[in-house]
Amino acid sequence: MKEYVVAILGATGAVGQRLIKELAQANIPIKQVKLLASKKSVGKKLKFKNQEIIVEQAQPDSFTGVDIVLSSAGGAISKKLLPEAVKRGAVCLDNTSAFRMAENVPLVIPGVNDQQLAYHQGIIANPNCSTIQMVAALYPLHRRWGIKQVVVSTYQAVSGAGKKAWDEMLGQAQARLDNQQMAAAILPTPAAKKHYPLAFNLLPQIDIFEADGYTHEEWKMIHETKKILFNDQDSNQIKVTATCVRVPVEIGHGEAVYFILQDKQVTVKEIQAEIEKTAGLILQDDFKKQLYPQPLQIAGKRETFVGRVRADQENLGAFHMWVVADNLLRGAATNTVEIAECLVRKNLVRVPNI
Amino acid sequence: MKEYVVAILGATGAVGQRLIKELAQANIPIKQVKLLASKKSVGKKLKFKNQEIIVEQAQPDSFTGVDIVLSSAGGAISKKLLPEAVKRGAVCLDNTSAFRMAENVPLVIPGVNDQQLAYHQGIIANPNCSTIQMVAALYPLHRRWGIKQVVVSTYQAVSGAGKKAWDEMLGQAQARLDNQQMAAAILPTPAAKKHYPLAFNLLPQIDIFEADGYTHEEWKMIHETKKILFNDQDSNQIKVTATCVRVPVEIGHGEAVYFILQDKQVTVKEIQAEIEKTAGLILQDDFKKQLYPQPLQIAGKRETFVGRVRADQENLGAFHMWVVADNLLRGAATNTVEIAECLVRKNLVRVPNI
Repeated sequence: MKEYVVAILGATGAVGQRLIKELAQANIPIKQVKLLASKKSVGKKLKFKNQEIIVEQAQPDSFTGVDIVLSSAGGAISKKLLPEAVKRGAVCLDNTSAFRMAENVPLVIPGVNDQQLAYHQGIIANPNCSTIQMVAALYPLHRRWGIKQVVVSTYQAVSGAGKKAWDEMLGQAQARLDNQQMAAAILPTPAAKKHYPLAFNLLPQIDIFEADGYTHEEWKMIHETKKILFNDQDSNQIKVTATCVRVPVEIGHGEAVYFILQDKQVTVKEIQAEIEKTAGLILQDDFKKQLYPQPLQIAGKRETFVGRVRADQENLGAFHMWVVADNLLRGAATNTVEIAECLVRKNLVRVPNI
Repeated sequence: MKEYVVAILGATGAVGQRLIKELAQANIPIKQVKLLASKKSVGKKLKFKNQEIIVEQAQPDSFTGVDIVLSSAGGAISKKLLPEAVKRGAVCLDNTSAFRMAENVPLVIPGVNDQQLAYHQGIIANPNCSTIQMVAALYPLHRRWGIKQVVVSTYQAVSGAGKKAWDEMLGQAQARLDNQQMAAAILPTPAAKKHYPLAFNLLPQIDIFEADGYTHEEWKMIHETKKILFNDQDSNQIKVTATCVRVPVEIGHGEAVYFILQDKQVTVKEIQAEIEKTAGLILQDDFKKQLYPQPLQIAGKRETFVGRVRADQENLGAFHMWVVADNLLRGAATNTVEIAECLVRKNLVRVPNI
């Protein structure tokens, strides 16, 4: 049986550390794990299973002999290093937005569109965290009844903005509880000119703004959903629009998803049953028992949790659902490692000659 | 000039304390202020302007000689005491949901539908906090272009659940920062069987559940909006649906409002201009300057703040906006005192003989 050399790029970050843990439990025969990061983390020791591994500096030659790269070190680093890794024969699974919309890069949620892995040319993209959990919940409904339109409002946890933003938010919370001023230097995004506190606040800006006033996060939810759910020629058949808001939660994005089905006869019970029988989805929906997904309860879990399925009482075929998932696992590390498992199972861990 | 005796019922609560402050600045000639509360607050001293007032126990005879009652002591107390106050000649402005949907009770947002005050029979209801700020922002657009449909997702502050819930959430936050277990005995609502922590969490339950799986808060947003924006015979022309979520914010509800206009030719700029020129609304909408409403920035202010006005790029006539207001002021005390000012100005401070 073939064994694989796997490199984790950005190994010391919030997602990187989860990639190490998820890889340790994956159904992938491992020959060697390499941990790569920026200069300042070189020499750090991290555990993979019971083995201590020393973090090395990420550079083009780090990828010589590597079969699979799991990458989560930021878009700029992906853009620079992943083509170098592909040149050296490594298949790269990228967690950043660097290559997601590129024509030759499959954007994959296993169980939804992993058949597209067959066409990869060395780089495969992991969708954005907020996209993954929404599409995971919508897909079984789409497959059976067709989705016409989606209007989503997100409630996104700070860990999606990285470890520094997370620490900043906790520091702000302590400052407020001590009746001190809250400082802000990172959120809403390091790339922004102005920074605002997130603790006990709401920031309706995730990532930078596009020219049309949508944020890049909103843009990602709209266009990634279309790319995942449809092949190119009919990607405009499903209408998607979004408002993305950062909330003072550590782990676990919430999403209020309003969707309109093509089939107008579907009932809430049928939707609940479809979700319940789909692998990777967990229905938490019993209002009589106050059962509904909450970030605090699902942090550390791999599934996507769905509750509060309700019919819009004035529009036949329109429904609400409330979707929550661990953004670092389901929205990032778990999805990436599941793609790697798929590649191994389908014997697709090779860069094709093009 | 007539001077009025004003009683504040529930004077020691989060809204009650703001009613005292708002009344002190109101355009209402005051003869006397009475502060009423439950037995356990009797004897407390609170300041109205520079005057110390001793809190008295609220009971039917407390209202003898009172002209105006500003009530915020919970639905059960309103149901019991306000009819007694009306019998004694007092006009009651109620902040609870006790009478909002009653046929002979005007449900009023000054500037939107204060003409309905003319038909009051002693009790006038203040809409729910989340309804007030949404309808305040939608009304100028509705008047000019007609609103067909609204889909709203709320991000509601803990102070809307009262002072005890607010304290509970702050205690939970400190527990988490000290790596202690968070305790929960009040939220999502004292009436619920199960309680969950709100700090660093999201609770998609506000108030109790209705039989159809909507929460009572969602029900209020839907039905109060219809009652305010239309008179009875065409109250079903505007479609409204809602998802209400409690978030770990102290003061200031956020609302992601998606709305569809009857007029399909309207532009974002026209909507922004209409909001900008409406009294009581403040447009904070310039993405190039990262200007958008945030709870931390608007707490303590009386206006309704609107930003992130955007067109749905695939549905002509459909738009998003992000609405934030201080739920204790705009959503409660300020609206109530503005109704009192309207009544005084229109010479309607009298219980009609029916």
